[in-house]
Amino acid sequence: MTRVLQFGLGPIGCATARLVAERTGLQLVAGVDVDPAKVGRDLGEVAGMARVGVPVVATLEEALAREPADAALHTTSSYFPLFREQAEGLLKAGLDVVSTSEELSFPWHDNAEEADALHKIAVQTGRTILGTGVNPGFLMDSLPLFLTALSQTVERISIRRVINASKRRGPFQAKIGSGLTPEAFMERMEAGRMGHVGLPESIAMIFDTLGQTLSRYESSVEPVIASALTETEHFSVQPGMVKGLHQTASGFTADGELVSLTFIASLDSEEDTDTITISGRPNLEVTLKGTNGDLATVAIAVNSIRRVVDAPPGLMTMRDLPIVSWSP
Amino acid sequence: MTRVLQFGLGPIGCATARLVAERTGLQLVAGVDVDPAKVGRDLGEVAGMARVGVPVVATLEEALAREPADAALHTTSSYFPLFREQAEGLLKAGLDVVSTSEELSFPWHDNAEEADALHKIAVQTGRTILGTGVNPGFLMDSLPLFLTALSQTVERISIRRVINASKRRGPFQAKIGSGLTPEAFMERMEAGRMGHVGLPESIAMIFDTLGQTLSRYESSVEPVIASALTETEHFSVQPGMVKGLHQTASGFTADGELVSLTFIASLDSEEDTDTITISGRPNLEVTLKGTNGDLATVAIAVNSIRRVVDAPPGLMTMRDLPIVSWSP
Repeated sequence: MTRVLQFGLGPIGCATARLVAERTGLQLVAGVDVDPAKVGRDLGEVAGMARVGVPVVATLEEALAREPADAALHTTSSYFPLFREQAEGLLKAGLDVVSTSEELSFPWHDNAEEADALHKIAVQTGRTILGTGVNPGFLMDSLPLFLTALSQTVERISIRRVINASKRRGPFQAKIGSGLTPEAFMERMEAGRMGHVGLPESIAMIFDTLGQTLSRYESSVEPVIASALTETEHFSVQPGMVKGLHQTASGFTADGELVSLTFIASLDSEEDTDTITISGRPNLEVTLKGTNGDLATVAIAVNSIRRVVDAPPGLMTMRDLPIVSWSP
Repeated sequence: MTRVLQFGLGPIGCATARLVAERTGLQLVAGVDVDPAKVGRDLGEVAGMARVGVPVVATLEEALAREPADAALHTTSSYFPLFREQAEGLLKAGLDVVSTSEELSFPWHDNAEEADALHKIAVQTGRTILGTGVNPGFLMDSLPLFLTALSQTVERISIRRVINASKRRGPFQAKIGSGLTPEAFMERMEAGRMGHVGLPESIAMIFDTLGQTLSRYESSVEPVIASALTETEHFSVQPGMVKGLHQTASGFTADGELVSLTFIASLDSEEDTDTITISGRPNLEVTLKGTNGDLATVAIAVNSIRRVVDAPPGLMTMRDLPIVSWSP
């Protein structure tokens, strides 16, 4: 039985807490969130399930003073500068950590110094930290890498993810620009911290694992414009306004493009589908349906806990651990 | 650079030898086969490529007396009683071993005692042995297990593999019964050692990894009958004769069927397709095209070498190692 501390109680953190509570091999022992509207309330109530008799607390120290834990599920920010101290604190408190922070999924390219420092702390404390999620962490990196196990040669890897955002949670619909003017969309994009995070991390994991040198990285982002009134539970988008985004990223070796990623998320889009194409010997085409990002990220984070508990100390990524799978 | 000894020079062994020779990270240093028609000839010539200046030898001892090696690619028999001594010999000679022997892919259920003994030898010699291949080893076990990483709950796993055997090598076409009468097909099946090997191993790997108890195992096999004259490079099948097989296997928990496998291989069949369906939360459907068994088994065996060299000692399976991927 692994005692799990939930760190961060936004929509994803509440969902991971609920899933931990369902599992026979895991025990939900604490919940930490800085939101004053959540602190002091019962963790179960905040997470949207039956009361668990444990109040949400504002700090890690308070949580561990009440109840020891073995592992933390960390679901706060996507960005290294914002989660770094939290991650360090969890490791130093003696916890193994599974995090949904996108920039942690393969930080050795874009945040290499910070990753080295975090790895060092993990090794010193004898604990393991993993960044995971459906994307980055699986669909555009570790899964296609595993599929190349069947490849005698690999010439090009192309992955296309299409998400119908109408079915997703509000913060996700906001993150893809829903309801903005096209101008506001481009301004926010240029200011950073909007849109899908993780394409550079996925490309870096693929290149590094395949032993390739990333000589050039290109990316683009465009708004998807509503042609008709588009309504969801959270947004009402007028024609001409933004209802989503279309992002691409490409990784090149000295010989040309090796990896091409396309991420399309918009309200009322075509059906959710992921397509992974590996050109080489043989040519492989893999199509996935049902990889809903919210459900799947929650699942893969919770399913990763037992691997992280068993792993050697350090900052690990999904390509370093034995395959993660469901368990009861 | 890993020095690779090729043990077994049938069609698969010749293909793995050729692929090893292509790889910059691997060096083909020896070839062993008992066939007097191969012994003494140049390994490259036997494997169907340029001469390599090394003769095929009949025993492991002769090979290692000529040239040291780090790892062996073992491609001989599917069946534990037939490959067990070979595997032990390779480990005792100090080699890490990747084997395409189907019964080695997850031997802890059907050959548990033999597996324990082999594991013990691997640990004693400080070497690693892995059984792998596209199936068993990937499509019906480690890949679906990795896909359950996205599952909050798993109710049922169903995998269907359809192979157009007209495109495959002669021994494979023979193995599925091509050209037999339906009666001869059933007799041979009952006598054992015909048909696809590996369904019990795949089911055992799934159950064990998901922490489930296999309370019942069922399997069936039927011939696929030619309705018209069916011709390949290797066989000419008259109407009414066998052109392939349809195998199924099911694994049950106390609550009912958890895993259902269907393997269809016949001459002139529908297009090669694999479908993995995981029912639960969410429902996942994954379709694969291009997983040609000969190409893919050769690839996954060669791609596994670096993982096996890096792994801790013991008898490992594909669910124990970090994800295998292509490398140059």
